Amino acid sequence: MSDEAVRAIGSEQVPYFRTPEFSEVMFENERLMLRFAAAPEGSRAAFMTGSGTASMEATVANVLTRADRAIVINGGSFGERFVELCQLYAIPHTEIHLDFCQPLTEAHLAPLAGQGYTALVVNMGETSTGVLYDMPMISRFCRDNGLLLVVDAISTFLADPFDMAALGADVMITGSQKALACPPGVSIIVLSPRALERVDKSTTPCMYLNLKLALKNGERGQTPFTPAVQTLLQINRRLRDIEARGGVATEIGRMSALAADFRERIAGLPFTMASPSPSNAVTSLRTPGMSAFDVFTTLKDEYGIWVCPNGGELRDSIFRVGHLGALTINDNATLVDAMRDMQRRGIIR
Amino acid sequence: MSDEAVRAIGSEQVPYFRTPEFSEVMFENERLMLRFAAAPEGSRAAFMTGSGTASMEATVANVLTRADRAIVINGGSFGERFVELCQLYAIPHTEIHLDFCQPLTEAHLAPLAGQGYTALVVNMGETSTGVLYDMPMISRFCRDNGLLLVVDAISTFLADPFDMAALGADVMITGSQKALACPPGVSIIVLSPRALERVDKSTTPCMYLNLKLALKNGERGQTPFTPAVQTLLQINRRLRDIEARGGVATEIGRMSALAADFRERIAGLPFTMASPSPSNAVTSLRTPGMSAFDVFTTLKDEYGIWVCPNGGELRDSIFRVGHLGALTINDNATLVDAMRDMQRRGIIR
Repeated sequence: MSDEAVRAIGSEQVPYFRTPEFSEVMFENERLMLRFAAAPEGSRAAFMTGSGTASMEATVANVLTRADRAIVINGGSFGERFVELCQLYAIPHTEIHLDFCQPLTEAHLAPLAGQGYTALVVNMGETSTGVLYDMPMISRFCRDNGLLLVVDAISTFLADPFDMAALGADVMITGSQKALACPPGVSIIVLSPRALERVDKSTTPCMYLNLKLALKNGERGQTPFTPAVQTLLQINRRLRDIEARGGVATEIGRMSALAADFRERIAGLPFTMASPSPSNAVTSLRTPGMSAFDVFTTLKDEYGIWVCPNGGELRDSIFRVGHLGALTINDNATLVDAMRDMQRRGIIR
Repeated sequence: MSDEAVRAIGSEQVPYFRTPEFSEVMFENERLMLRFAAAPEGSRAAFMTGSGTASMEATVANVLTRADRAIVINGGSFGERFVELCQLYAIPHTEIHLDFCQPLTEAHLAPLAGQGYTALVVNMGETSTGVLYDMPMISRFCRDNGLLLVVDAISTFLADPFDMAALGADVMITGSQKALACPPGVSIIVLSPRALERVDKSTTPCMYLNLKLALKNGERGQTPFTPAVQTLLQINRRLRDIEARGGVATEIGRMSALAADFRERIAGLPFTMASPSPSNAVTSLRTPGMSAFDVFTTLKDEYGIWVCPNGGELRDSIFRVGHLGALTINDNATLVDAMRDMQRRGIIR
């Protein structure tokens, strides 16, 4: 859900972008992204015109090398994607495979300590399940073992607390369409000085996903190729609004309150929380008594409300309710009222 | 310049896209793209969330192989980009280097006949100079020598006549932000059956630019990764509007009339046409008596009109006037009036 100010920009003519004015916008975007990620001194941000996967791939291709030994946390389809990317780029890696909604614990990591690993790759929140991993624990393990820490925060940035410097994280990836609440089409990579050193030495075979090129152009507030100009202007508006309202802590507080409110309201409905450690971004609900996909379809067709269905084997057992962007307590009430109405009608049981 | 209907979509909430409704939009987008490109029976279109360069790279990476011998027409910065991509992917290639605005002639191609070449790669219009290449001549050469023909039509699609089947072209690339007159962020690749066979056998190392994956998802009207949903909805609106107004011939006629009108109006101004074979998309003008960049700056700052400056060594000698999208004869008049005013003031001389 985008707010009105962001949406209004979507209806303006797209300005020509090879200008000092647009460069100023991009400088501000980078400055605010670094601030909101609590990136360490000397970090940089690259803005990629592409899906989150473009930035996941750019990270694997530009930051990791065949000399690495990476640990990849695979607790769902986005963890799986990192595994596939490591395969594609021949990055030696070990996968920690977690069952659906299973938390990562010290018991998973302990056997890998002192084994010569060089990097750990994790989706802080696994978008497909709504699980939030224990980042302080992961951070300690990486510090203790000298690992580079790559964090995909696509679905959690601005929704759950994330302090890149405190965690000692080296890469943070996010996308325009999640808590940034802009249209999809831009993804962003924040890189620590240690990650930047790796990019600088990288010999990635890809032109479009070449981070050295992106960062070099970013030095003058530009991108190597025509970017999604309008989405970048919308991101700028959104970042400035967050700053004006008190910064990232205020925004995360708002998201947290919204998620807590929803989770209280559904008491009495025959759903169970799928994740024991849910992100503020999304609530994943199991529907033991009916098809989760039918809940999605009925809400859409009969109430005009959109929740997120799951695909594949989870299609009938789980649906997700997002809390990102310009949603309000009122939206929670409307949704839960609709669910209670469906319960009265015997559809939710 | 986007029209009002397209811009209005930009201010709507972005709908969830893993739905039959969005699939229908994508099926229609593909159908109309194939029709407007006059693609041969059995062709497909892939919609990539990314700049035109993403699709140029996807084409080189998925359609060409190290077993090819490609001829690359390099008449400016976008031809140069294809040369770099062939280098990056180790595609054996020979470059035909043209001087700025120099047309490609049979004399350039003749020595390469019967030399074992397998493909020819050309930017139909070189965006950086506004030159339109002689496509029928290129087509004859490719047919006579059995070459695969790859056409980057990023800046010319819907502006200059292009008949993929008649030319025997195998790939056509375009972007959302040129004559499609939508925001930047999406590029499109139309592939002939012969090109599709190559994609099917491809072992490209890239996930994000993997065309097999894009085409496979396209079979159900979807994309492998979250696309720029809104831009794809805007493209849909624009394609349907073109269809409703009489199709691609009408649209090209409108663009051609607009370009001709502008070129007549500037008679008497101290500019010369940079290209002997200009595209309808853009008029490149030399400014022998002053800095072209100053013309751009003054038009922007004092008249609120945007023309396109050039970068690099052409910065001071050439500027470009685009004729794409929702521009009208009235816009031509406003621009040329401003130029005549600048001439009276002694700025244009």
